[in-house]
Amino acid sequence: MVGHENARRLGWVGTGRMGSEMARRLLMAGCDLAVYNRSPARAEPLVRLGAKPAGSAAELRTRDIVFITVGSSDDLIAAVLGPQGLMSGADGAAPQVIVDCSTVSAEASARVRAELAEYGTALLAAPVMGNPSVVRAGKMTAAISGPRDAFVMAEPYLTMLGRGVTYVGEGETARTVKLCHNLFLGVVAQSLAEVTVLAQKSGISRQAFLDCLNKSVMGSLFTGYKAPAFVNLDFEPTFTATLLRKDFDLGLAAAREHEVPMPVAAIVHQLIQSLVGRGYGDADFAALLTQQAESAGLSLVSEHADVPDGLSTTET
Amino acid sequence: MVGHENARRLGWVGTGRMGSEMARRLLMAGCDLAVYNRSPARAEPLVRLGAKPAGSAAELRTRDIVFITVGSSDDLIAAVLGPQGLMSGADGAAPQVIVDCSTVSAEASARVRAELAEYGTALLAAPVMGNPSVVRAGKMTAAISGPRDAFVMAEPYLTMLGRGVTYVGEGETARTVKLCHNLFLGVVAQSLAEVTVLAQKSGISRQAFLDCLNKSVMGSLFTGYKAPAFVNLDFEPTFTATLLRKDFDLGLAAAREHEVPMPVAAIVHQLIQSLVGRGYGDADFAALLTQQAESAGLSLVSEHADVPDGLSTTET
Amino acid sequence: MVGHENARRLGWVGTGRMGSEMARRLLMAGCDLAVYNRSPARAEPLVRLGAKPAGSAAELRTRDIVFITVGSSDDLIAAVLGPQGLMSGADGAAPQVIVDCSTVSAEASARVRAELAEYGTALLAAPVMGNPSVVRAGKMTAAISGPRDAFVMAEPYLTMLGRGVTYVGEGETARTVKLCHNLFLGVVAQSLAEVTVLAQKSGISRQAFLDCLNKSVMGSLFTGYKAPAFVNLDFEPTFTATLLRKDFDLGLAAAREHEVPMPVAAIVHQLIQSLVGRGYGDADFAALLTQQAESAGLSLVSEHADVPDGLSTTET
Amino acid sequence: MVGHENARRLGWVGTGRMGSEMARRLLMAGCDLAVYNRSPARAEPLVRLGAKPAGSAAELRTRDIVFITVGSSDDLIAAVLGPQGLMSGADGAAPQVIVDCSTVSAEASARVRAELAEYGTALLAAPVMGNPSVVRAGKMTAAISGPRDAFVMAEPYLTMLGRGVTYVGEGETARTVKLCHNLFLGVVAQSLAEVTVLAQKSGISRQAFLDCLNKSVMGSLFTGYKAPAFVNLDFEPTFTATLLRKDFDLGLAAAREHEVPMPVAAIVHQLIQSLVGRGYGDADFAALLTQQAESAGLSLVSEHADVPDGLSTTET
Repeated sequence: MVGHENARRLGWVGTGRMGSEMARRLLMAGCDLAVYNRSPARAEPLVRLGAKPAGSAAELRTRDIVFITVGSSDDLIAAVLGPQGLMSGADGAAPQVIVDCSTVSAEASARVRAELAEYGTALLAAPVMGNPSVVRAGKMTAAISGPRDAFVMAEPYLTMLGRGVTYVGEGETARTVKLCHNLFLGVVAQSLAEVTVLAQKSGISRQAFLDCLNKSVMGSLFTGYKAPAFVNLDFEPTFTATLLRKDFDLGLAAAREHEVPMPVAAIVHQLIQSLVGRGYGDADFAALLTQQAESAGLSLVSEHADVPDGLSTTET
Repeated sequence: MVGHENARRLGWVGTGRMGSEMARRLLMAGCDLAVYNRSPARAEPLVRLGAKPAGSAAELRTRDIVFITVGSSDDLIAAVLGPQGLMSGADGAAPQVIVDCSTVSAEASARVRAELAEYGTALLAAPVMGNPSVVRAGKMTAAISGPRDAFVMAEPYLTMLGRGVTYVGEGETARTVKLCHNLFLGVVAQSLAEVTVLAQKSGISRQAFLDCLNKSVMGSLFTGYKAPAFVNLDFEPTFTATLLRKDFDLGLAAAREHEVPMPVAAIVHQLIQSLVGRGYGDADFAALLTQQAESAGLSLVSEHADVPDGLSTTET
Repeated sequence: MVGHENARRLGWVGTGRMGSEMARRLLMAGCDLAVYNRSPARAEPLVRLGAKPAGSAAELRTRDIVFITVGSSDDLIAAVLGPQGLMSGADGAAPQVIVDCSTVSAEASARVRAELAEYGTALLAAPVMGNPSVVRAGKMTAAISGPRDAFVMAEPYLTMLGRGVTYVGEGETARTVKLCHNLFLGVVAQSLAEVTVLAQKSGISRQAFLDCLNKSVMGSLFTGYKAPAFVNLDFEPTFTATLLRKDFDLGLAAAREHEVPMPVAAIVHQLIQSLVGRGYGDADFAALLTQQAESAGLSLVSEHADVPDGLSTTET
Repeated sequence: MVGHENARRLGWVGTGRMGSEMARRLLMAGCDLAVYNRSPARAEPLVRLGAKPAGSAAELRTRDIVFITVGSSDDLIAAVLGPQGLMSGADGAAPQVIVDCSTVSAEASARVRAELAEYGTALLAAPVMGNPSVVRAGKMTAAISGPRDAFVMAEPYLTMLGRGVTYVGEGETARTVKLCHNLFLGVVAQSLAEVTVLAQKSGISRQAFLDCLNKSVMGSLFTGYKAPAFVNLDFEPTFTATLLRKDFDLGLAAAREHEVPMPVAAIVHQLIQSLVGRGYGDADFAALLTQQAESAGLSLVSEHADVPDGLSTTET
């Protein structure tokens, strides 16, 4: 909890699914928060929880710390530097720190950082690990990069967002951490598909196998919350194969730039490309299981089992 | 805790590092346990905790349930069926259930199972997921296969061993689950090596990167307890590259038998072979990080950081 | 041509498709050849070309050099050591050299070699590189291993079989060369599938692309004679995916035994397994192209083009 | 041979190692050829063979067909469109066809093509398959793309350059063919390294193994002319690992653009990256053999054998 006497005045730009879940946690913790969303209706639930509605991003420039969750690099640039953006007010007011929690390119981030420096505003890159369900369960984390003193100022609020953040260095390094995280996630998903199909063809139900794996030292929140999809074949997208391919494109490009061979990630990249080529581009990347089963001559059916996703207990 | 009126009389054969840690948990829970080890000195700490010493495996044949933790398939066969083995007594006494927690071949297990059936003794295959430190921390798990009623009888005691066991079916299926688990573990280790080196070459310390990953949804007990090795380059073997190669040999043989392609596991198999070829066969398999760094033109040095291994809090 | 005065008396056991094409070449060169096949009808075309028919394998034991082309390890053992086999005569007659051109296991070959040694008969392992069309075109080759003096004696006749043989050493080393050859062949086939699909999706016909590649320094007889299948999608099996998988099983087992990592061969092994899993096990392994196209979202149609296979000109 | 009455007047820009070997072949065939090189000394040997020296690229604009062999995309743009380039003359004279035999990007080629169109000059993309030794042996080939009538006009001269060219379509398609060719070449080289090391660890000399493979249906000019390097470990660069990596960068980018998964090429890409990371970037890519041997725990020594490279017989 933040002491009343030094509580910062906060702002939030972009209250989509991720942003709303995150902002809600600040409100629950009693923070003074003003919110702006392009379509105001999506901000209303937060207003009902006590957020102050803002009519434009520019109105938020008087807040101490402004968080941003938007959909793309271009959206970030527009939200901060655009004609109606955060910095577009004529009065010279500016937040001390902007925390960008979106997944954007290092180039866009660096450009925004450089322009903000002219206003004396620090940018923290804070890409989020986890989807909206993870945030709601209080289990979100983030890598943070940028000026350390800005991090120290924002840390109490960042900590409220989930179960902890890690300061990883200056500049855009947090963007690379997010790419590494997603490369790792893709490899884990493919390997999980391989061993799950092997277990099943050996006579073990997917439910029993994944229960066992998730209890073991190898179990993670991720392998837990993917279990329902693997057992019951619900491939309703949380993150599509096409989006994962994009992260592998970027991650492997970063690896190439730094001259790091990635034999396993490279193979998984190709398997994701194959998944897209076989028509699963808009399905959840958990369809890697389907592709793997087809390659093993196995026709999957739902096990219609009651499988916990490990996210049901909300921490607050 | 087991109710006094129906508490089973237990036995334990093989009190090496793993066996001792596991048997200790049964004693702590108040079980009636007799123990036998080829070299009696290694059983003494358990005797001091209340275990009854046995002079031979055969003496344990009067116990209701006997657990076994030995080093190899041959050791299992000798311990159960050998001239001084568990079943070698002339009086026809026999345990109702034998629980084999060793890592042995499915063939050896099936042979023991078949011979035990003639005595009316059921065999549960119960390969353990986790090393001695994991057991000590109360975080061991196991897959169990064999007759379901034998499982029901042994379950209260199996549950005492760690944070849960999973019954996966008849016969030797638990052996396959263990192989799947270790294939997954090897892939995760290699992928972790790849992204850690990428993060480091991007300017992020291994400590910061792994802290961030371990907090995230991708963090597991495994990625946690490997962090000290990755950060401080302590490759004191917990599990050697050569042993991991053996598990990949067996796991990929099982995949071939069941006609399951394993593209990622197959590549990791070759990378482990390369690790052995480059002279790291007796090092911990975490040396995959070293190999990966060398392939990236990076010379690793210890970060001499204080990194938790996630196992310090002992559950009981 | 062999000088009349020192021409050896030759025998041939097994006149299937490969054996007939090879034996025919010896007859065309004027050799004194006796032939035996389990079903005599298949030997008749050779008899019409001048071969002497034998009523049993045992009848051939008086020949100087006997060639064998049979289907499996068991067939080889039966043909040589079986009750009606080559060495079953009671009179002690035995060939000086037996040349086994079959594809059999190193174990079977070593066993036959050891038993033959008791009769003073040398065994040459002579696994053939090429299919019947390649033999007919005079382009077959073989690796030879066994006692060098036996090789010197057989060499003039081995040379007649195609465009050259290579003595690679003692014992079963020729078997390993054949496995290496087939691993290489499988990798080349998969890579050819990858680049052909890339070329086609870039707007280049398979015919033009493969014509170009085959003219280039990368062109081989193999890439040439596979071109019609790739262009016109005729997957009539010359060598099935299942058979190629078997060679990869054996080749990778040899690599494991000798502790040689094979990253690329291992991936191709898995892709062949996937091909089998997707139902192409009985198709020619050129169906790797189909699998590759499907993974690229491409539906292949025959180009109905006139593509030379590079084998039309028969050398004699 | 070209009939005298309709023989075209030819020009050549860039007489480095490749260009000189190619131009020499036109001179040997009796063509009317003018040559220009930035440093005139390198053109002198051609002048001694009958070529007309030109003082600038611009002087060659009056020739019917001008061939170009330069080192990079920028060099091509300068040679054609630069201030002293081929098209820089004020008199409006222009060749009918320019044949670019360099390895340049599709983007640079398309830009040059578009600007040349304004002069009515056609551009043929004609990337060459083969190194200078291959050209000298008369075994060079090329893929050609661009306007078909320009190809028809240039074809007699293109044919003189080696053992045949293939017209693959409009635009820049020949550039893609070259990338496919080089991806295939890299995969073949890596696979050759794998099986050669396996053969050697099985007791077969590299010389015997490669002799056997090169005689077989798998043998190509490429596997032939790499044999001396593999046997005698002469890694004097003909094409460095770093350059091959660049071709894999481009080839895999093309594959990504066309959504073609390339599992085997992707792994080889990473192995080449590893080769660079281990310090072999400036060595010939045949050092893949060294890397493979090191991963197999094998220390290579030269076999000091007399190995033909298959290029000694010059075709004319």
